[in-house]
Amino acid sequence: MKIGILGGGQLGRMLIQSALKYDDQFYTLDPASDAPCHTISYFTQGNFNDYQTVMDFGKDKDVVTIEIEHVNADALAELENQGIKVVPNAKIIKTIQQKILQKEFYKAHDIPSPEFQVVWNSDDKIIMPLPFVQKMNTGGYDGKGVQVIKTEADYQHLWKEASVIESLVDIDKELSVIVARNENGETKTFPVTEMVADPKLNLLDFNICPVFLSDDIQKQIDSITEKFLNVVNSPGLFAIELFLDQNGKIWVNETAPRLHNSGHQSQEGNANSQFEQMYRVVKNLPLADTDTIGYSGMLNLVGAEGYSGKVIYEGMEDVLKLPKTYIHLYGKTETKPGRKMGHINVLADSREELMEKLVKVKEMVRVIA
Amino acid sequence: MKIGILGGGQLGRMLIQSALKYDDQFYTLDPASDAPCHTISYFTQGNFNDYQTVMDFGKDKDVVTIEIEHVNADALAELENQGIKVVPNAKIIKTIQQKILQKEFYKAHDIPSPEFQVVWNSDDKIIMPLPFVQKMNTGGYDGKGVQVIKTEADYQHLWKEASVIESLVDIDKELSVIVARNENGETKTFPVTEMVADPKLNLLDFNICPVFLSDDIQKQIDSITEKFLNVVNSPGLFAIELFLDQNGKIWVNETAPRLHNSGHQSQEGNANSQFEQMYRVVKNLPLADTDTIGYSGMLNLVGAEGYSGKVIYEGMEDVLKLPKTYIHLYGKTETKPGRKMGHINVLADSREELMEKLVKVKEMVRVIA
Repeated sequence: MKIGILGGGQLGRMLIQSALKYDDQFYTLDPASDAPCHTISYFTQGNFNDYQTVMDFGKDKDVVTIEIEHVNADALAELENQGIKVVPNAKIIKTIQQKILQKEFYKAHDIPSPEFQVVWNSDDKIIMPLPFVQKMNTGGYDGKGVQVIKTEADYQHLWKEASVIESLVDIDKELSVIVARNENGETKTFPVTEMVADPKLNLLDFNICPVFLSDDIQKQIDSITEKFLNVVNSPGLFAIELFLDQNGKIWVNETAPRLHNSGHQSQEGNANSQFEQMYRVVKNLPLADTDTIGYSGMLNLVGAEGYSGKVIYEGMEDVLKLPKTYIHLYGKTETKPGRKMGHINVLADSREELMEKLVKVKEMVRVIA
Repeated sequence: MKIGILGGGQLGRMLIQSALKYDDQFYTLDPASDAPCHTISYFTQGNFNDYQTVMDFGKDKDVVTIEIEHVNADALAELENQGIKVVPNAKIIKTIQQKILQKEFYKAHDIPSPEFQVVWNSDDKIIMPLPFVQKMNTGGYDGKGVQVIKTEADYQHLWKEASVIESLVDIDKELSVIVARNENGETKTFPVTEMVADPKLNLLDFNICPVFLSDDIQKQIDSITEKFLNVVNSPGLFAIELFLDQNGKIWVNETAPRLHNSGHQSQEGNANSQFEQMYRVVKNLPLADTDTIGYSGMLNLVGAEGYSGKVIYEGMEDVLKLPKTYIHLYGKTETKPGRKMGHINVLADSREELMEKLVKVKEMVRVIA
């Protein structure tokens, strides 16, 4: 089957890597000539935000999917009109890529998400009490396009473009759950992952899976995933990022309509990875079992501050000596501060052992130039 | 690093698939324009038996390795002379690719292997008592180039070319052990695998790992692998195929200087696969841990008798519904009787469960056209 992917980054690369177990042909579209997918797929250099480029790319594929949500959704809708299968469908991509539509989707379907107000421009009066979060309507990614406004003095930093103003959740834990639905309507959910964020870079730092939650909290999450999978009305793999607040209530922070950083430890930590699951969704195959194999965790390898240029992974040989530790690099030649260059997955028999190993590994490596 | 592989078949494909976790460039050489590696590596169509083709292919690589042993070893020796790293080295490839040299290697190093006689042509008198095995000196592969001579009437079937005449072992079990050695001299051994052969096709049918053996038998195997890794004098990953005879004695049947079908279940059955280990050998990195994760098994997907042409995998959707069952196809478009098209790995909690699952899966699938 000819499978086209908008985006040729690491998510696409790991999807193709996983799917090399099967007999499909992968095509990728990315503006960067050296994108991580360029040597392992039929590669087209081009802008996935451009209507005509997406139309030209998609027209002869059996199915078109995405590994980044900031793509031209109108072109995807037109491809659907022309009979090309698009996974997830253009409508849900459009809904999720705009924070305003995404929030309204949660509200319409009674999915708990922090209270919000829509601000179209700087003339709109903000009625949300301080402190609050501002999320740009479009273009947010990897923690960009999100800021916290704490005091009236911070008002001067408010972005002037269309955005969502959201009440600030008093966060106990950040959680994520990866869910999948195929065209036949079959659904499957990965175990819940806890994300421990680095406050400076606002990129994920550690993922830990599974997380043991009270019955009540697990029920709240199950109810959210079930509702989401019922109303989404599209095949797809989605990462639902959640807040657990100090009062034990679960809120949806946001959803990504694609493979997600918070699912990377599933490569070695689960019976099947999110990449295998995504492949099955794209081809409308029976969904894979998602059982955990003990405890698993992940840490991102991001470019260190102060280094730009040809990447050097310091300390990697020592990491290779550690049992049950798995390095995943993304085939990017150039590093820069904060750039996601790879990740390391770790397996352990207990949460304590896992945390110890993750902290140890994090201290061993540095991504420099 | 620029890594060149002679051969572009499924072993190379799974090596590259596994190594996509790292940042190397893979180059493959294969006579078939649609070889399984052709879309996932820098591909050169050409004959790996031809001296000049191998020289041209290898001269600008950092390291050259193989995924098939029937390559031009003289060219590899010359590449070594010119400073190109070759893994495993040309000498051991030459030794192993000729059955006569291989048998003499075992004898010289006191590695137990069935008694043998060298026959250079049909004039040489055979002194080995019946029944015996004849193995062609060169060109044997996948059970080809091997025949059993049982009675004097069978003498007429004797091949006339240079060959090894070997005493027939009264086999209790066929075993295999995959061993690795890097340039630094570090060594690592995978747990022993039992191979259950299909007498008709003479291709592996099931692999089962681990196998529980008496202390005495395990010690014999350990002694063989240790001796082999000491005397081989080359970095490499090797599959040592063993016979356990009815008297509890272990014999080396033959060795492959490369990735091997008997190690495929390591993809999901071990902490790291033979492919990860091979990558580390090629790059002289610390070797990976090889612990088993419960019981694992593999069955080959070979083209069914009577079907040639564009491949159809019958029953595959049902297999995808089974937990802890992993399909691996090789990206070959055309099937023919007996052609290795893929394999399926299965995990289980006991040997009995594993056998049951393997038999069930085998009955579910058929590779037809």
